Amino acid sequence: MPSLQDPLFATYAIAAALMILKAVAMSWLTVYRMMKAKGGYRSPEDLRKTPLNPQPDPSQLQPNDYVDRIRRIQLNDLENLPFFLVAGLLFVLSMPSLLHARIVLYGYVLSRLLHFAAYLTAQTHDLRASMWTIGSLILIWMTLWVLAAALGLTA
Amino acid sequence: MPSLQDPLFATYAIAAALMILKAVAMSWLTVYRMMKAKGGYRSPEDLRKTPLNPQPDPSQLQPNDYVDRIRRIQLNDLENLPFFLVAGLLFVLSMPSLLHARIVLYGYVLSRLLHFAAYLTAQTHDLRASMWTIGSLILIWMTLWVLAAALGLTA
Amino acid sequence: MPSLQDPLFATYAIAAALMILKAVAMSWLTVYRMMKAKGGYRSPEDLRKTPLNPQPDPSQLQPNDYVDRIRRIQLNDLENLPFFLVAGLLFVLSMPSLLHARIVLYGYVLSRLLHFAAYLTAQTHDLRASMWTIGSLILIWMTLWVLAAALGLTA
Repeated sequence: MPSLQDPLFATYAIAAALMILKAVAMSWLTVYRMMKAKGGYRSPEDLRKTPLNPQPDPSQLQPNDYVDRIRRIQLNDLENLPFFLVAGLLFVLSMPSLLHARIVLYGYVLSRLLHFAAYLTAQTHDLRASMWTIGSLILIWMTLWVLAAALGLTA
Repeated sequence: MPSLQDPLFATYAIAAALMILKAVAMSWLTVYRMMKAKGGYRSPEDLRKTPLNPQPDPSQLQPNDYVDRIRRIQLNDLENLPFFLVAGLLFVLSMPSLLHARIVLYGYVLSRLLHFAAYLTAQTHDLRASMWTIGSLILIWMTLWVLAAALGLTA
Repeated sequence: MPSLQDPLFATYAIAAALMILKAVAMSWLTVYRMMKAKGGYRSPEDLRKTPLNPQPDPSQLQPNDYVDRIRRIQLNDLENLPFFLVAGLLFVLSMPSLLHARIVLYGYVLSRLLHFAAYLTAQTHDLRASMWTIGSLILIWMTLWVLAAALGLTA
């Protein structure tokens, strides 16, 4: 089995774990904002009176940008992170140099954290898009590398 | 290669396969409900007259909670299961005890099946949220375990 | 570690890389169509005047089917591809024959490319649904195969 003691595989595991925690954090941040705003809910049954919602109101099902911003960030994660997680695994199995793997994998993590910061604080689209672009290009790079290795095009 | 004959890896493979089948089932359940309700469609071209839609009507593109409930459940799956699938793989590669792996991996599967049951039958938010929370905490636990192992913090 | 030099694992890696590139292409196609339509944006801050959006207008946040069609295709990818990527990995680790793996994995890739073509060009629902169904049945097949192998039900 691949071992977490192997430096190359550990690099992947660290990057993957950080991205998984980032993705999970979006769910918790959505929960936090829904509780703080007492709104941004989505299901009809969420208007029932419960300990977590003692004073239900139909307006709680209305769109709420304070909550929906996190949902947009999360959707962007869903469009990117699962593919990074698999591409990164195959990438380290293609035996790149440790330096190459560190630049690519940690570079991706950094680009996504900066994307999150830009999105959360509603920076201009151009800044947010630049961060997304860096991550996406890294993902494409890793995937093409894997494809070349699997096709036997690399040494 | 990791082998499905290895008890630890087989535990992961069983949990992963069950969660993948669960996720795929949401797609089929959406299809089933769209056909039963003859609505909840999303694309303009779905209003064309075809063998599967002999009597098209513009109302078929309106939101339909009978269908959209499954879509919400599926979205919740997308926010959770891909990360579980990768975290679980790395978790078993970090060589936990078999008992630890079984509790964590099968516990996650159980929490998601209960979340589905609570969501499908429109139980109160608090019950559904509790099931989600158990799964999310297990996911965080596995991911922190992987991170610690990859950073060499565990024996 | 599994090696990309192994023909079985390389088959998986090629199929996975193609599907990851396909998924990433949906993001870029969304960007392309947003820039071409100068609309279909989602965040309030996207109405700020920037080099990429020199003449902002509130209508840019309205739904735009030219853009939203790609988003629907992408959502369909998110509902399917991450599960294929993990199921396919476990499938090749269950040591199927190379022919079996090629038919199943490349068959899936082909079904998704045809689904994309049908969806992009707004073919009738029935054609698009048929392509989706083929891919989904292949995914279920692979997953049941993995489950049987992990449960020790196969030789």
